[in-house]
Amino acid sequence: MSRFLHIAESAEDLVLQSHMQRELGRRTGTCFQRCVGMDAANAMWSTTFDIDQKHGSSYHQRFQDFLKTMQKQNCVIGGAMTDVKGDRMLTPSQQEDPDLFVHIHRRLPNGGIVLRGAKAHQTGTLNSHWMIVMPGAALKEADKDYAVCCAIPIDAPGITYIYGRQSCDLRAMEVGNEIDQGNAKFGGQETMVCFEDVEVPPELVFMDGEVEFTGLLVERFTAYHRRSYVCKAGLGDVMLGAAATVSDYNGTSKASHIKDKLVEIAFLNETIAGTALAASYGGKPTPSGNFLPEILMANVCKQHVTRMPYEIARLTQDLAGGFLVTLPGDKEFSHPVAGALLEKYMKAKKGVTVENRRRILRLIENMTMGRNAVGYLSESMHGAGSPQAQRVLIARLMDLEAKKKLAKHLAGIVE
Amino acid sequence: MSRFLHIAESAEDLVLQSHMQRELGRRTGTCFQRCVGMDAANAMWSTTFDIDQKHGSSYHQRFQDFLKTMQKQNCVIGGAMTDVKGDRMLTPSQQEDPDLFVHIHRRLPNGGIVLRGAKAHQTGTLNSHWMIVMPGAALKEADKDYAVCCAIPIDAPGITYIYGRQSCDLRAMEVGNEIDQGNAKFGGQETMVCFEDVEVPPELVFMDGEVEFTGLLVERFTAYHRRSYVCKAGLGDVMLGAAATVSDYNGTSKASHIKDKLVEIAFLNETIAGTALAASYGGKPTPSGNFLPEILMANVCKQHVTRMPYEIARLTQDLAGGFLVTLPGDKEFSHPVAGALLEKYMKAKKGVTVENRRRILRLIENMTMGRNAVGYLSESMHGAGSPQAQRVLIARLMDLEAKKKLAKHLAGIVE
Amino acid sequence: MSRFLHIAESAEDLVLQSHMQRELGRRTGTCFQRCVGMDAANAMWSTTFDIDQKHGSSYHQRFQDFLKTMQKQNCVIGGAMTDVKGDRMLTPSQQEDPDLFVHIHRRLPNGGIVLRGAKAHQTGTLNSHWMIVMPGAALKEADKDYAVCCAIPIDAPGITYIYGRQSCDLRAMEVGNEIDQGNAKFGGQETMVCFEDVEVPPELVFMDGEVEFTGLLVERFTAYHRRSYVCKAGLGDVMLGAAATVSDYNGTSKASHIKDKLVEIAFLNETIAGTALAASYGGKPTPSGNFLPEILMANVCKQHVTRMPYEIARLTQDLAGGFLVTLPGDKEFSHPVAGALLEKYMKAKKGVTVENRRRILRLIENMTMGRNAVGYLSESMHGAGSPQAQRVLIARLMDLEAKKKLAKHLAGIVE
Amino acid sequence: MSRFLHIAESAEDLVLQSHMQRELGRRTGTCFQRCVGMDAANAMWSTTFDIDQKHGSSYHQRFQDFLKTMQKQNCVIGGAMTDVKGDRMLTPSQQEDPDLFVHIHRRLPNGGIVLRGAKAHQTGTLNSHWMIVMPGAALKEADKDYAVCCAIPIDAPGITYIYGRQSCDLRAMEVGNEIDQGNAKFGGQETMVCFEDVEVPPELVFMDGEVEFTGLLVERFTAYHRRSYVCKAGLGDVMLGAAATVSDYNGTSKASHIKDKLVEIAFLNETIAGTALAASYGGKPTPSGNFLPEILMANVCKQHVTRMPYEIARLTQDLAGGFLVTLPGDKEFSHPVAGALLEKYMKAKKGVTVENRRRILRLIENMTMGRNAVGYLSESMHGAGSPQAQRVLIARLMDLEAKKKLAKHLAGIVE
Repeated sequence: MSRFLHIAESAEDLVLQSHMQRELGRRTGTCFQRCVGMDAANAMWSTTFDIDQKHGSSYHQRFQDFLKTMQKQNCVIGGAMTDVKGDRMLTPSQQEDPDLFVHIHRRLPNGGIVLRGAKAHQTGTLNSHWMIVMPGAALKEADKDYAVCCAIPIDAPGITYIYGRQSCDLRAMEVGNEIDQGNAKFGGQETMVCFEDVEVPPELVFMDGEVEFTGLLVERFTAYHRRSYVCKAGLGDVMLGAAATVSDYNGTSKASHIKDKLVEIAFLNETIAGTALAASYGGKPTPSGNFLPEILMANVCKQHVTRMPYEIARLTQDLAGGFLVTLPGDKEFSHPVAGALLEKYMKAKKGVTVENRRRILRLIENMTMGRNAVGYLSESMHGAGSPQAQRVLIARLMDLEAKKKLAKHLAGIVE
Repeated sequence: MSRFLHIAESAEDLVLQSHMQRELGRRTGTCFQRCVGMDAANAMWSTTFDIDQKHGSSYHQRFQDFLKTMQKQNCVIGGAMTDVKGDRMLTPSQQEDPDLFVHIHRRLPNGGIVLRGAKAHQTGTLNSHWMIVMPGAALKEADKDYAVCCAIPIDAPGITYIYGRQSCDLRAMEVGNEIDQGNAKFGGQETMVCFEDVEVPPELVFMDGEVEFTGLLVERFTAYHRRSYVCKAGLGDVMLGAAATVSDYNGTSKASHIKDKLVEIAFLNETIAGTALAASYGGKPTPSGNFLPEILMANVCKQHVTRMPYEIARLTQDLAGGFLVTLPGDKEFSHPVAGALLEKYMKAKKGVTVENRRRILRLIENMTMGRNAVGYLSESMHGAGSPQAQRVLIARLMDLEAKKKLAKHLAGIVE
Repeated sequence: MSRFLHIAESAEDLVLQSHMQRELGRRTGTCFQRCVGMDAANAMWSTTFDIDQKHGSSYHQRFQDFLKTMQKQNCVIGGAMTDVKGDRMLTPSQQEDPDLFVHIHRRLPNGGIVLRGAKAHQTGTLNSHWMIVMPGAALKEADKDYAVCCAIPIDAPGITYIYGRQSCDLRAMEVGNEIDQGNAKFGGQETMVCFEDVEVPPELVFMDGEVEFTGLLVERFTAYHRRSYVCKAGLGDVMLGAAATVSDYNGTSKASHIKDKLVEIAFLNETIAGTALAASYGGKPTPSGNFLPEILMANVCKQHVTRMPYEIARLTQDLAGGFLVTLPGDKEFSHPVAGALLEKYMKAKKGVTVENRRRILRLIENMTMGRNAVGYLSESMHGAGSPQAQRVLIARLMDLEAKKKLAKHLAGIVE
Repeated sequence: MSRFLHIAESAEDLVLQSHMQRELGRRTGTCFQRCVGMDAANAMWSTTFDIDQKHGSSYHQRFQDFLKTMQKQNCVIGGAMTDVKGDRMLTPSQQEDPDLFVHIHRRLPNGGIVLRGAKAHQTGTLNSHWMIVMPGAALKEADKDYAVCCAIPIDAPGITYIYGRQSCDLRAMEVGNEIDQGNAKFGGQETMVCFEDVEVPPELVFMDGEVEFTGLLVERFTAYHRRSYVCKAGLGDVMLGAAATVSDYNGTSKASHIKDKLVEIAFLNETIAGTALAASYGGKPTPSGNFLPEILMANVCKQHVTRMPYEIARLTQDLAGGFLVTLPGDKEFSHPVAGALLEKYMKAKKGVTVENRRRILRLIENMTMGRNAVGYLSESMHGAGSPQAQRVLIARLMDLEAKKKLAKHLAGIVE
């Protein structure tokens, strides 16, 4: 069975997820999109169990049944959490348009539900078989209709996918221009998913109005998912390799300041890996029996992910040199006059072909400014919650009262 | 007379250059390209004077004559300094191909010279009237033929310009798609300039083999030019405005962490301005009478320019939110089905049109990942010399011996 | 006349203040304490003028008369601004004890006033001849009695000075132990100044209840004073020299990573100098005719001062090596057994005496952990206002509306 | 058996070491000194095994016997690795004085050895029962006599301990002044240990000339020991608690910028913990069967330890306010006049006693400038190797060739 469809039965399982994610980041240099479904399944697993414990509902069995089918068919599952949100200072039910968060618009006679709304920034949904819809924030009683989890086949009637633009998206469509694309093999994509009266049968509904569990669900999902950003350490491995290669090609790789910058890249990158692994290793069982990563450390990891890749990108652009942004394109290199001049003047270190120099420069462009800068930078910033979302969790979990006691004890303070 | 063609006669003139540069950065949001010529003219002015003083040559008079013509005709001058360099660990004459640095290939009967070689990363040369060719590093006797300065009309026979690609360059060519371009009005461009037996008459030659002045010329040019990167504080003003606007539109601008990030952007940005201005204010006259910025501070300024815009870009991407990289394009917004859905679901704060939200997101994309990320980020990194080049200068000018004396005096050390 | 008693008549005067301050920092390696009086005098000069313009009062003439006397007698003036503040969330008049901010307790028949309260963190007051008392924050009508400025001789009846402890203060008192003191010649000191019914005659009162001018006074004083922290660039020069010397003595100064750290120290340190100088150069005349530094840049400077010295101290501790904190004391070096062992085992690079190695290590200890860490670090943090105080000013002065217009213009936004 | 004398038999054992270390850091707020012996024992265990495998020697059995005795007697073991080093650019045998590194001076008839030399920066040795002497760097054949490991009782004839001074050491000796000491209960100490012809019997010698194992020994010891700096996350917990408490006492703890700084402290601090735990969790068995932490991650951890505590200290000094360095001492608080004034004017938030405010300020002074700043800052910088030592290891272990392959694969580079 694919680990992406597996429920973590031990901390070791969580660690193996982390290793798989970094490895896939290494091999693709972009977002490979399946972690959302894995993290959603694990969070749903324990949360449906907890809801049932309290309410006597049967969401957990339903979810098990659904998951078994997925496992048998080896389906790709996307997780749809982020609503389009409208005015960020208002709750779902306070918005002018009730559809700015996905919600139950009406109910079907068979006990099923009908959804309306839209989920934004859906990486990978488009090339999944199914998606799991979840609320994106802790909700209060007034937002009961927004407390809905369910599974929907990707081609269900009423769904419209709207593709987003990416930096250098047109270049990716240029025929026969593999070099200028940098990473011609892999690239992520993002859609907005609009739900216009999408019907969901009762057996695929896993939460329906239990607002008191929405916060727990989000916390658990993000615990898995923020730690899943260890994949960026895999992309960082590619960046380190690209930075080292371009230094080789430029003939500068023996300069002490170049070597020091490579060490700094590795140091920053391993910090992401270390905190992600610590979160996985520190996983503990939930009441349902599956394992949940250490939440505080998962948030520490993701907070680093919002900083380190940007600094790694900056250092790599430093090492790449100016041709990163002034390199002519394939048409010029194929041009009878310009091509010969470029072949002559783009020569760098002896033994390095101009083509290879172009290729490594384009890969760095791709990952720091181009199509996969989305996966390496912007997604690192906003995926699984923007930086402040992690800070809110760290604030909640840093246990200030216990820390104050330590300080007061040593200072001899008795209150 | 345009200040871009003016020789600085006072520190106040240098300061006025700085103000003009920041202002133009504010108005264009990109590289406006004329500072290279201004800085080259000022560096040439004093260096030709110094060469003449030593060698009894007449370069200074030649340069004056040239410049007066430029002023009368209000020409745009580009400055061509960076060679393509080949293997970075070898000097010009050590390269396998002697043409990897621009040099005098042969001499004309009339005393003129014939150039060969190529200059890389030439911002603005293509839309200039003239260019001033200069060597890019301090040279030794063996590289005598590479110690050449001269003026060349942009359309001189034997010159080939090869345009570089840019992130999102194809998007800039999409007809009728002004919104997705972010900053549809302004954008820089970069070319490689190849010289194949370009003839230069003697009256336009301003250095010919005086290798001992190449270091001085480069140091002076970079003193002007590294401080000229104050323009990036102008682009930073645009970034600050964009970050504030997108926060307004998202409805988050009253959150304390948002306000704090805006303050941090302003703080980082003003650091560029402050050190640039200090370099200009601290300008001192050269023997020729024109004014040269304070060199150490100019290098401190440029070193900040290689760091601050990247952090400002990171903070702005943070404030922009995920739509920065998932926003659909104009065709989707104009589509009968998708357009209506987008108009509904992209609503954010009341009173903000979806179009305006798109526009500000596209501007931020443009400056942090797209076409003008070249001007705001990569050019900040490599223009006027990559970070290590500034560190070499700081190392030379930080006057360690004087500082050691201070420490030893206070520590009571007598040696 | 001492520049410390001089009213700035031009931007050039402000720049000369900055140069004097850095130079004195270099020569003392600590706080030399006279800038507060200089900055207070300049802020009082223009503010008394403005009050008189509005209210027809004669504070400005009084202040002129006072200052002339100071200049004739070449007195040292301290500036007393920071109140002890009590509960930071309450205004002066909201405090349980009205004395937690200095205020007019009662009035004398001759028109004079009687002060009560206490000023904290008074550097240099103790070794001044006079002090100028000023309010420390913008006040509202309810706090009218706290809106008081006046001059008081340092030995006025009713004043009590309470000396604060410093790190390593006892070491500074060890007789005959000059080496272990690091910087045996200079050190700052801090007192709390308590006012118990201190009488001030009317001719020495320069503000009395004009609450609407308290904000302006504080803003002006801090504009001068935050830029005065350029002195820390002088201390940073000493740190750079100490870091270079200890590297010489350890025999490591040729290692590339050591050289790079010295460059980083210089770079960080010059940033303080550059922004301070930019604030001074950019000074503009007030209605009274004297010159006020550029306020935004003064705050940018001070914000750097709350960060850079800490990083410089960290880098210098890195270069110093472990003996920074494990070096035995003078008594051990003078001991018949231990002394010989230490002389043998503390040998480092050939030609460097053990005594000189001790001296430079102690200087670094003194400035990063010991008595003058107060002057180099903590005072850099809190003097002239803690970091957040500068951020409040930057927020106010960064002119977000103008910046938004720039961004909207380029994005094509019409609202 | 104390875990400090235990040989790690699993990764879980390594993790339990990490938890114990952080917990002890929390309880003491300083260096508790026993980790060196634990790490030395574990590194000796596997290295003696490997030497025996190659050379047929019996070091491993000897070391086992020694360790069993230690375990039975529950002895405290110190680890003595850092030599005084003389000129850092010379190897041991190149030094003018052969004693600048500890070495075998001569041999005894019974097969024992006689040591000479000195070990610097010995934390905890003085209050241990035994010490394990080890070389501090990889050695070459010429330095054979320096390749020596052995156990020595702390009071062996020929050893002289010379105590180092600490910041505020005299304050720690003031009788009856517990408050001003900040952390009156705990404090580290550092000595230089001089060996003048110290005899070691053969059964306590664990390496004698096997230079080819010195590099391995150091790498293993530092793998354990660099990860042992997780204790600083325990001290960081105390700092976080102190920062939160002083904010409570100042009445500022609800301000958003204060809360954000507390989150930043927690975030930085948990990074140390996360990377240390990842190194422990990732431990792998050596040929001898005991477990060795993941070396790359241990070095990443220690590198953070050279940065994070300094930034945490800076943030905490920010939150503490100016009284951190201007607070009068106990004698003033007990003084009939000054004491009453201080009691009146040091009042801050309602309900907070002045004594408690003093206590928390003194604790912060203690840990950021005073006696335990040695343990929190300088030891974090230099203990287990200065920052560059970790970078050398990261450079060696970051596996650049594998990373280059990843980048080349994605870029389509075939070489």
